[in-house]
Amino acid sequence: MNTDQLFKNINKHISLSAVEESHIRSLLAEKHLSRNDYILKQGEACPFIYFVNSGLLRAFFLNPSGKDNTVMFALRDWWITDMHCFLNGLPAMVNIQAVKPCHVLCLSKASLDSLFEDIPKFNRFFRILMQNAYCREQLRMIQNLSLPAKDRYEGFLTKYPQIANMVTLKQIASYLGITPEFLSSIRNQKKGK
Amino acid sequence: MNTDQLFKNINKHISLSAVEESHIRSLLAEKHLSRNDYILKQGEACPFIYFVNSGLLRAFFLNPSGKDNTVMFALRDWWITDMHCFLNGLPAMVNIQAVKPCHVLCLSKASLDSLFEDIPKFNRFFRILMQNAYCREQLRMIQNLSLPAKDRYEGFLTKYPQIANMVTLKQIASYLGITPEFLSSIRNQKKGK
Repeated sequence: MNTDQLFKNINKHISLSAVEESHIRSLLAEKHLSRNDYILKQGEACPFIYFVNSGLLRAFFLNPSGKDNTVMFALRDWWITDMHCFLNGLPAMVNIQAVKPCHVLCLSKASLDSLFEDIPKFNRFFRILMQNAYCREQLRMIQNLSLPAKDRYEGFLTKYPQIANMVTLKQIASYLGITPEFLSSIRNQKKGK
Repeated sequence: MNTDQLFKNINKHISLSAVEESHIRSLLAEKHLSRNDYILKQGEACPFIYFVNSGLLRAFFLNPSGKDNTVMFALRDWWITDMHCFLNGLPAMVNIQAVKPCHVLCLSKASLDSLFEDIPKFNRFFRILMQNAYCREQLRMIQNLSLPAKDRYEGFLTKYPQIANMVTLKQIASYLGITPEFLSSIRNQKKGK
């Protein structure tokens, strides 16, 4: 199991000993996903948090009328799950699907809880992860309320150029909360300049 | 300085010794706010996180056209700041104003950082705080996408009855992302039943 990227990710914030790394490694499972495979479906149990070793995942929510809303993307080096449902043992509210073939490492809720006890500094790591996730959502909410769609699209291209190259226009539009037709018109205006 | 409520809040998740409590107490400032006072204004520095000892605060964002969007409320026993700007030393994106007279305890970013080093289990406490904040925002986003305004209003009344009793209809509407007129029509339908 290739865990190099995972430990680079964790060691950005805390220093793990070889023994601690080995203990964490013993708690992980891995999964290979083909394009369009799901690792999580709305309504099903959500027992894992995933670290993306390679590929690209998309979390999305289908509302009762079937509208597809992209909640987040996760590239190599990102963590993803339905956090609320994972932490509280509830059925998932979102789907998570491979946009590209993926290799992910899986950590169960019980294993994560044991890490908080056995390697207390893991609390520091996860605290930073949660801070970043909360701030990202706060920023996104405020940008949705304040910036015109054109600026949000340009912000997305600047912030996530790799993702923009791998997903469909429809998926970007659903992340930005606009229709694909409106996103097309924004792109055409940009080209016309 | 009355810190009973604060230590009850922290000791829900970690156990602090008397010495640790005393150290934390030495890092705090306190502030009394009258109704409508601001503790944070958009564009200004955001050096503190606040613990609400009593009263009610409202965080809101004025978009460029002057529309008022309620980001969150904070009652007694809640923590509040503009987290993204507080953690990253950026000018505030939101205003925080007293809806009712408030007594708040103030902890600076430097003091919070020192607590993460000096009392490592404080990482565990703040990790749980950030998990809860992130999950609350995730849930709110998905409910905004999936539930009709009427159900979201009823959910708000059930979840936050104390807040609902203290704020204006306009403020609830701006938290729910609907117009005050639409909220009035929902309330009138409820009364008519």
